[in-house]
Amino acid sequence: MLYHVRMDVHLPHDLPGDTRDQIVRQERDYAQQLQREGKWIHLWRIVGEYSNYSVFDVDSNDELHAILSNLPLFTYMETHVTPLAGHPSDIHQSAST
Amino acid sequence: MLYHVRMDVHLPHDLPGDTRDQIVRQERDYAQQLQREGKWIHLWRIVGEYSNYSVFDVDSNDELHAILSNLPLFTYMETHVTPLAGHPSDIHQSAST
Amino acid sequence: MLYHVRMDVHLPHDLPGDTRDQIVRQERDYAQQLQREGKWIHLWRIVGEYSNYSVFDVDSNDELHAILSNLPLFTYMETHVTPLAGHPSDIHQSAST
Amino acid sequence: MLYHVRMDVHLPHDLPGDTRDQIVRQERDYAQQLQREGKWIHLWRIVGEYSNYSVFDVDSNDELHAILSNLPLFTYMETHVTPLAGHPSDIHQSAST
Amino acid sequence: MLYHVRMDVHLPHDLPGDTRDQIVRQERDYAQQLQREGKWIHLWRIVGEYSNYSVFDVDSNDELHAILSNLPLFTYMETHVTPLAGHPSDIHQSAST
Amino acid sequence: MLYHVRMDVHLPHDLPGDTRDQIVRQERDYAQQLQREGKWIHLWRIVGEYSNYSVFDVDSNDELHAILSNLPLFTYMETHVTPLAGHPSDIHQSAST
Amino acid sequence: MLYHVRMDVHLPHDLPGDTRDQIVRQERDYAQQLQREGKWIHLWRIVGEYSNYSVFDVDSNDELHAILSNLPLFTYMETHVTPLAGHPSDIHQSAST
Amino acid sequence: MLYHVRMDVHLPHDLPGDTRDQIVRQERDYAQQLQREGKWIHLWRIVGEYSNYSVFDVDSNDELHAILSNLPLFTYMETHVTPLAGHPSDIHQSAST
Amino acid sequence: MLYHVRMDVHLPHDLPGDTRDQIVRQERDYAQQLQREGKWIHLWRIVGEYSNYSVFDVDSNDELHAILSNLPLFTYMETHVTPLAGHPSDIHQSAST
Amino acid sequence: MLYHVRMDVHLPHDLPGDTRDQIVRQERDYAQQLQREGKWIHLWRIVGEYSNYSVFDVDSNDELHAILSNLPLFTYMETHVTPLAGHPSDIHQSAST
Repeated sequence: MLYHVRMDVHLPHDLPGDTRDQIVRQERDYAQQLQREGKWIHLWRIVGEYSNYSVFDVDSNDELHAILSNLPLFTYMETHVTPLAGHPSDIHQSAST
Repeated sequence: MLYHVRMDVHLPHDLPGDTRDQIVRQERDYAQQLQREGKWIHLWRIVGEYSNYSVFDVDSNDELHAILSNLPLFTYMETHVTPLAGHPSDIHQSAST
Repeated sequence: MLYHVRMDVHLPHDLPGDTRDQIVRQERDYAQQLQREGKWIHLWRIVGEYSNYSVFDVDSNDELHAILSNLPLFTYMETHVTPLAGHPSDIHQSAST
Repeated sequence: MLYHVRMDVHLPHDLPGDTRDQIVRQERDYAQQLQREGKWIHLWRIVGEYSNYSVFDVDSNDELHAILSNLPLFTYMETHVTPLAGHPSDIHQSAST
Repeated sequence: MLYHVRMDVHLPHDLPGDTRDQIVRQERDYAQQLQREGKWIHLWRIVGEYSNYSVFDVDSNDELHAILSNLPLFTYMETHVTPLAGHPSDIHQSAST
Repeated sequence: MLYHVRMDVHLPHDLPGDTRDQIVRQERDYAQQLQREGKWIHLWRIVGEYSNYSVFDVDSNDELHAILSNLPLFTYMETHVTPLAGHPSDIHQSAST
Repeated sequence: MLYHVRMDVHLPHDLPGDTRDQIVRQERDYAQQLQREGKWIHLWRIVGEYSNYSVFDVDSNDELHAILSNLPLFTYMETHVTPLAGHPSDIHQSAST
Repeated sequence: MLYHVRMDVHLPHDLPGDTRDQIVRQERDYAQQLQREGKWIHLWRIVGEYSNYSVFDVDSNDELHAILSNLPLFTYMETHVTPLAGHPSDIHQSAST
Repeated sequence: MLYHVRMDVHLPHDLPGDTRDQIVRQERDYAQQLQREGKWIHLWRIVGEYSNYSVFDVDSNDELHAILSNLPLFTYMETHVTPLAGHPSDIHQSAST
Repeated sequence: MLYHVRMDVHLPHDLPGDTRDQIVRQERDYAQQLQREGKWIHLWRIVGEYSNYSVFDVDSNDELHAILSNLPLFTYMETHVTPLAGHPSDIHQSAST
């Protein structure tokens, strides 16, 4: 099942540099692991912002929440989740409007 | 180059049925043609709304505007375009945060 | 899987009375059928507004979209869907914060 | 009487860890006690956010405010309360639209 | 129990004059009846707008919804209801902050 | 003359406890004095929020600003003032729509 | 007493030309009469919009509402009223911040 | 040329008292100097808020920005500027709608 | 003097085709005449929307309002004007931050 | 390819003065270098705000994100990017609506 997620990161200005670098590294490793597992199937940077649009392919709402709430950057993020369904015009869906 | 687009369709209540069906058919054919050409690479229905999230892969802003403004449903749509860049954690980008 | 849905109904003023009554009846029958099937598990009226908060228990995003987009009142509605997960403090979840 | 409540939690980044854990524990105990008393009848996590949708069954506005304002996390929360009424299509209400 | 309600009236421009006058008369009679019954305890015009702030004293959410949804002008209104509780500084509450 | 005021209080998390208690006490005393003087005629708690709806009866805009800007909690508040006029359906106004 | 008012005019596209011209003429005559009476003391056009910022000098909220609700264009307007007080830095107030 | 400006002041809670008083004094002197020069022609307090509506009469956009950005309180302010034009109904403009 | 303007065009669905084409032609001729006069110095299409960002170089607020309010499409537009000043980092301004 | 960017700068009040001056200097040098390279083709100050409207001419979304995310002030900014296309009425485009 697919979910669209927008993530906006707001790191406090006074967060010590090394703490920041460590969290960002953990976030990358975590994200790449999920991509290799096929859970995090799209990850795009929103131009000009410390934000991304992502698409997740998971089996349930609960699984998605577990993934997102365990993001190392989670406490510094605003996230918004939109559930996605197949579109009748999507040729991969072999259906039409 | 990738662009994220949200489209919200608002068809007038008093639009004659056959006019409506024809435009929707034209929209589907137009969308499926662009998908076959590799321009419209993702098309997902937003659950519960006559809206979609799409991702386009085109060569320029002008090309994207030409595609969108020629959508049969364009005059009945609200669209919002967000340019996308590669994300350092995207494993396909072989880069990391 | 649970989904929270807000529905705001905006019926056009110039919709003929009998058309209106028929659609509203169809909406009620449709809603009650889904409740009997255990899909539409909560349906509350928002005080003072032609709106409701509902909770659906379905197996997928696609199933929910099919249900919502087939609501007789769908074209006269604004709907917003929020996926729900188990809360660690929910005693039925036998888990804690 | 039923009330729909949205709670968004914003814990300050610089809140000491043990203080945070203690408040969160108190919040869980408080919430579970109210659930056992039948006051807090639904508690769902909003996927991807440190937020919840809840439904309370209480006898008055004042009782609800007392409950909410005594939440251990109250000072770190944004809450919005919406009073709910019976919906004519709710089969439990044995009434229809 | 007290509820704060904001009502914004939007009468269609093309509503025939006599229909308009009749509905407005019915609205006034309905409002004044509820005031005499002690349900509608405050009714103030928002300066410069076809809107009002009102306070209702009713026994339940359901009673309030029945009152509001039966307003002759209801279909031409946007309404927002906020439940009120006693304030600790309200001298009539013989309590303080 | 009547004015509707919404007040939302945002006390900083790191405000020392005793300072907080003192300001809150001063706020209550100030509010109760104005109520006894007939200036602050309604004070209701918005359920679930550290906010209130109030109605003031004063002789001028300037008098209201002096009252509000001297609230002990003023610097920690967001306030919004709406001037009120008599409503033609208000039976106390012995007028009708 | 001074009040700041923003007025946004939205004339329906299908309003017959002569009806439109007549209302606009009446609006001008009404506005100019109030200016001559010293009630409507400032009237500025917001550049690029069919809107204005105005300042009224009247004796009460009720007087202002009577003035505004009798504007010929009132039913085609969105209006927002903000009560004004003397500013301590206003040299005409012979007071300072 | 006239410009409408809204200024909302947000002084940090932890700003030392004497620093605060000094800035506020400087702001008043600066504002009064500009009033005497005929640049800052209207300055009104928004009732209940640490905000004002002002009107400036200057020769250019650049002059206005220089004035505003040199306000002692500028870094603690949100400002919004709206350019004003003559209104056809303004009797001082000897023109009509 | 420079002004930034956003224009969003909303043509009614039921506007007859020939009326629409005529207005759009007039709009283009009007826009191109102003560009030749050096008044309308930038005109860019916002990708995916019937909207544009423009920059005007005019001598006064009044001149800009006259230009904008005489746009053939004016009654079908939402416009928002932002006055621009020289930026200290603009190399053409030979100044720096 | 052209992109419209709005940048709003929010420097923390407690940022040491010399740190602030250094970052602002770096920002200017960086901006002026990009202007000389023809990337940053327009940079205008929004009157009354620590904000600017800019237009960039770059070859791709990724190039723009690299430029923006390396702005010395980036972590203190809110930025919003809008892709621009040629407008049919732009005489430089030798095209018409």
